[in-house]
Amino acid sequence: MSGITTPASRVFSSDNTAGTSPEILEAMTRAAAGQALPYGADDTTASVRRRLGEIFERDVDVLLVSTGSAANALSLAALTPPWGSVLCHRDSHINNDECGAPEFYTAGAKLIPLGGDDAKIDPQELRAAARHKAGDVHSVEPSVVGITQATETGAVYTLDEIRTLGSITEEAGLRLHMDGARFAGAVAALGCTPADLTWRAGVDLLSFGATKNGTMTADAIVVFDRSRTAELAFRAKRAGQLASKMRFHAAQLDAYLTDDLWLRNAAHANAMAARLQEGLTAVPGVGLLGAADANIVFCRLPRQVVQGLLADGYAFYHDRWEPGVVRFVTSFATTPQDVDQLLEAVGRHADRPAPVGATPGP
Amino acid sequence: MSGITTPASRVFSSDNTAGTSPEILEAMTRAAAGQALPYGADDTTASVRRRLGEIFERDVDVLLVSTGSAANALSLAALTPPWGSVLCHRDSHINNDECGAPEFYTAGAKLIPLGGDDAKIDPQELRAAARHKAGDVHSVEPSVVGITQATETGAVYTLDEIRTLGSITEEAGLRLHMDGARFAGAVAALGCTPADLTWRAGVDLLSFGATKNGTMTADAIVVFDRSRTAELAFRAKRAGQLASKMRFHAAQLDAYLTDDLWLRNAAHANAMAARLQEGLTAVPGVGLLGAADANIVFCRLPRQVVQGLLADGYAFYHDRWEPGVVRFVTSFATTPQDVDQLLEAVGRHADRPAPVGATPGP
Amino acid sequence: MSGITTPASRVFSSDNTAGTSPEILEAMTRAAAGQALPYGADDTTASVRRRLGEIFERDVDVLLVSTGSAANALSLAALTPPWGSVLCHRDSHINNDECGAPEFYTAGAKLIPLGGDDAKIDPQELRAAARHKAGDVHSVEPSVVGITQATETGAVYTLDEIRTLGSITEEAGLRLHMDGARFAGAVAALGCTPADLTWRAGVDLLSFGATKNGTMTADAIVVFDRSRTAELAFRAKRAGQLASKMRFHAAQLDAYLTDDLWLRNAAHANAMAARLQEGLTAVPGVGLLGAADANIVFCRLPRQVVQGLLADGYAFYHDRWEPGVVRFVTSFATTPQDVDQLLEAVGRHADRPAPVGATPGP
Amino acid sequence: MSGITTPASRVFSSDNTAGTSPEILEAMTRAAAGQALPYGADDTTASVRRRLGEIFERDVDVLLVSTGSAANALSLAALTPPWGSVLCHRDSHINNDECGAPEFYTAGAKLIPLGGDDAKIDPQELRAAARHKAGDVHSVEPSVVGITQATETGAVYTLDEIRTLGSITEEAGLRLHMDGARFAGAVAALGCTPADLTWRAGVDLLSFGATKNGTMTADAIVVFDRSRTAELAFRAKRAGQLASKMRFHAAQLDAYLTDDLWLRNAAHANAMAARLQEGLTAVPGVGLLGAADANIVFCRLPRQVVQGLLADGYAFYHDRWEPGVVRFVTSFATTPQDVDQLLEAVGRHADRPAPVGATPGP
Repeated sequence: MSGITTPASRVFSSDNTAGTSPEILEAMTRAAAGQALPYGADDTTASVRRRLGEIFERDVDVLLVSTGSAANALSLAALTPPWGSVLCHRDSHINNDECGAPEFYTAGAKLIPLGGDDAKIDPQELRAAARHKAGDVHSVEPSVVGITQATETGAVYTLDEIRTLGSITEEAGLRLHMDGARFAGAVAALGCTPADLTWRAGVDLLSFGATKNGTMTADAIVVFDRSRTAELAFRAKRAGQLASKMRFHAAQLDAYLTDDLWLRNAAHANAMAARLQEGLTAVPGVGLLGAADANIVFCRLPRQVVQGLLADGYAFYHDRWEPGVVRFVTSFATTPQDVDQLLEAVGRHADRPAPVGATPGP
Repeated sequence: MSGITTPASRVFSSDNTAGTSPEILEAMTRAAAGQALPYGADDTTASVRRRLGEIFERDVDVLLVSTGSAANALSLAALTPPWGSVLCHRDSHINNDECGAPEFYTAGAKLIPLGGDDAKIDPQELRAAARHKAGDVHSVEPSVVGITQATETGAVYTLDEIRTLGSITEEAGLRLHMDGARFAGAVAALGCTPADLTWRAGVDLLSFGATKNGTMTADAIVVFDRSRTAELAFRAKRAGQLASKMRFHAAQLDAYLTDDLWLRNAAHANAMAARLQEGLTAVPGVGLLGAADANIVFCRLPRQVVQGLLADGYAFYHDRWEPGVVRFVTSFATTPQDVDQLLEAVGRHADRPAPVGATPGP
Repeated sequence: MSGITTPASRVFSSDNTAGTSPEILEAMTRAAAGQALPYGADDTTASVRRRLGEIFERDVDVLLVSTGSAANALSLAALTPPWGSVLCHRDSHINNDECGAPEFYTAGAKLIPLGGDDAKIDPQELRAAARHKAGDVHSVEPSVVGITQATETGAVYTLDEIRTLGSITEEAGLRLHMDGARFAGAVAALGCTPADLTWRAGVDLLSFGATKNGTMTADAIVVFDRSRTAELAFRAKRAGQLASKMRFHAAQLDAYLTDDLWLRNAAHANAMAARLQEGLTAVPGVGLLGAADANIVFCRLPRQVVQGLLADGYAFYHDRWEPGVVRFVTSFATTPQDVDQLLEAVGRHADRPAPVGATPGP
Repeated sequence: MSGITTPASRVFSSDNTAGTSPEILEAMTRAAAGQALPYGADDTTASVRRRLGEIFERDVDVLLVSTGSAANALSLAALTPPWGSVLCHRDSHINNDECGAPEFYTAGAKLIPLGGDDAKIDPQELRAAARHKAGDVHSVEPSVVGITQATETGAVYTLDEIRTLGSITEEAGLRLHMDGARFAGAVAALGCTPADLTWRAGVDLLSFGATKNGTMTADAIVVFDRSRTAELAFRAKRAGQLASKMRFHAAQLDAYLTDDLWLRNAAHANAMAARLQEGLTAVPGVGLLGAADANIVFCRLPRQVVQGLLADGYAFYHDRWEPGVVRFVTSFATTPQDVDQLLEAVGRHADRPAPVGATPGP
């Protein structure tokens, strides 16, 4: 792996370490020829919008941006005033992993952390929070609900769960944003339509993640509430997110959306995670944790296994959530051989006698 | 041209309509393979930093960002407090063309427009503004000077001019930012070292533009005042400018900086502009305007010529600054044949009898 | 004068150095007794709203704030998005004298300075600026026009002038804010109704200044566009402008609005300025400058007069706009004797032989 | 009570419903005469600074502001960058009751809620939070600790508790802010020196609350870390918190600090709360809740008592935290008779037979 010595086949640290799909690289090559209108007035950007309209079964507006953080922060800023609050899961990416990007873009709105299993917002907590001190000038005003699909722990909200959160949101007069950094994985896992999973359930704006699933430098905001489009355009320019050579972002998305590449990539990543899960259940001393509906697997590994894998050159996060807990992430680029080799290594280290004094997890 | 019907050879509207250099596309292809550490911890990003260190003859820190607007706004935010002011030319891009990105990133600093020919800041005006109400809490505090090299009208500050502005800035205790959206063109035009043109003249942060000169989605901030680096890193993340697959920005810059591609591209664009200027001087009724040191040519064309070129399918800006004034921009992708054909067309239309009542420029 | 040795009768530096009217102090004493609901739910705050409704001949909402800067910045923030622009005179207080408060409260909107005599916005400039690049995401969006009545130089817009600016504003789809730091002086000078001068001419929000004309710590925002009220309430709280013991601000305003105290104070200040102007015209070597419709007098004084007055202990601004230019400000507390003594002193110093080499103004 | 029909003697809802002390009103009357330099350059403002210097046994800088919210938000903004976090108790005023003022003033910093009894920050939680992801650009940076003394529930941190939090803060390289909305009450309760309780324990900036304890429209920031003073001055102006007639804020504070009025008022309010507590313990069915070290008493009252008191015209908060929980607040204006009458009423209603089906608290 560029930057470390790990071979590509042993990287399970994240889905953002993979490269890109061949189809996307080819599209980039085609885009490099000739001249194109700047700032999204080119044909390819228009094509992306049409494709997303077909996928979501309705007219949508689209903004192409360079990161998922920008997609999320721009979306939230278009849905809450500065004195508003964003109701989100306490483990959500927007709450923990964007260095306050939502607060920056919204000019100081407040994120209200809610609980719930598997990083899914608990509906009862949402119901209470959605009306908490509404209209009271001494408090921030509940304004937007932010859900992540698939969640940060790899779980996927069912269609019913999304609809429940959507209807609580609507009844309270709030707006709904979906952080779809791994949206393709959720669609692939559920087998339902993108439309049902989003605007038909009340989603106003969707961060349509692509980078983790095959593109290089491009994510998108899909705008269902088109009354927000003009505002988003100004906000994006002002945020340094209106690329002059937009076609190079668009070419990636266009290929990504062609012939279901986005779904094929996601289904593959999910299948690799399932293969890994299945294999892990057979290893003594390994405990799977939480729902692993998409491409993220959390498990508890004996310390000797963690140490053995690290010694083998495997890259993955461990002991970050709690001692002994390990996260493996698969991607479109993970091969069945990569998974099988990992499983073999886990089994091999698990069979060794535990070091004196070692416990299963520190 | 994608998005319009103009053939590539007739596009003189901007240097952001061109594609990319073959070397850059090849680097992108190489980067697509394998795994790489995210967020700039990859080898290619490290290589870009080394190359920029060599080019600028000292250690520098580097942030790769997706647009020049982001490079400018981040840089300014790291150099002024919210209650500060940015002294800049009234025609500068940061003042007019970024939808208030500097104001957004700085949390509300104020841009103070100054005058001067050819979009260069007048030293006398700067001298006065740099101390205007300094320390007076009723006024914003003069904090940073922003200069564009090459300027928005295609002029290039001489080394002496830069040094003069740099020393006024330093004496007043302010900081200096250079918007180098067309920095390569300025270096190519002046033939001086990048170091002399920047940090040796007092520049603290440089927006090192690349997109207009050959890359696809990547610009850079070159940090000379490395006490600003940590702050810039937090600001970039928070702004949605820390790309997860950073290697794909880095690969572009790395190729751009290899074997002087950046200077070769810029020298070519400049040469095309010079060829165009020289040809235009021979056309009766055509007046060149201002200094055209880099790749932008401003001129005054008879109305019949403007109309004729538009009818031929040429793309360029006209009548935007004042009636009859036309701007042509060349790029690394412009060919001598493109220029010669344009000159031929200008000459042909100029030879036609002027329409009754027409004046040379309305 | 507290803080300097100048006797009260010799202070002509500003109308913010005076104390308060006896009626206002008495109201404060009454307010100090007993208990009152906090945050503006008290009877006195309600009374202020009723009185302002009567004065403006319609229902209005009212926010009491602690400074004129807060009144202006809050109002502008409620009328422009962060990517909007505020069209104002280049000499306006919001542009020059509030340390970027409008930029802070609006989350980075841009003030566009316009020209015009006597610090009044030139209608032609406004007409052009109001549509400049409207709808272009590369530029800030023209959003609100800010006018000062009376102006910073002591001129008063006529009713026709206000109506003209109001109709340009409305036609362009923008909003209109009036900085009425010296609104009472303008009403007293014009003799027209407050309603005609504001909402009937298109004003959406008025900063109803009171501190300069007799109150101690209280100004008000009068809300004609009541769709802005809820937003203003949240913004005010968030800005630290929702006083818990609001009755103490309200008591000042309530007395100020009772029995026309606000108009009597303003008329007196205006009369003192007129007396001063009239007297100055009789002094050889003294030139009056600009319109002095309210309580501010600009004039050009021989240097020996300036020096003589300073030696006498007079406090006033001089040589700040240009050499030899002096500003005298009168207030509700200025007495005819104060003016006559000042005139006597000016005459006395003017009669002295000019020092060798002195010019009438440096 | 102005705004409601409750007689002053029956208001126990907050300490912000009281008027002002006679000494303060007299000072205001004196301040109303004559002229004074604006913006804090007057003698009275200088006197306030001197008095606070004596009280805190060292040189301090002082900013006078119009609300406690402004004092808190300005202070926090001077101690954290926009990408920083403020570690505070989850029940703190800055977290819940200021409509996001800290987020607004800091340009989007994040408040991290911590637990602990009696609204005091738990040292263990602080220790962990103070280093959580420090230096990680994906997360906000721990920057400032905010403690409230006395706390929002009426408890008072002991000197040792403050020192412990101060030393955790210092060791982690963070800054310390104290929200002293009821600082006088804490000093009166502890009997220790203001210096020990603040800067000697590591406090950098103190919101020195006065409004709840006797002033009308004025609170103060006491600056121990004087490297923050210049920044605070710009921020205050920009926030609309630099009053032109500052002497009217200063006069209140000056009288408040004279002859220990601030401590006498606070000691009286505390004594009234103690009297109330003592009386309540004697009433069957009444349970006291939490520490009541200052002027706030939380207790659990039988429903019939709550209803009876409301019917008597008493004003107080109930059923806001949880069913049956009541808060009584005393102030400098509360008399022993007021307390005794309240106790008599509580006893009277408690003696009545409980309504059928009623429980002690719903």
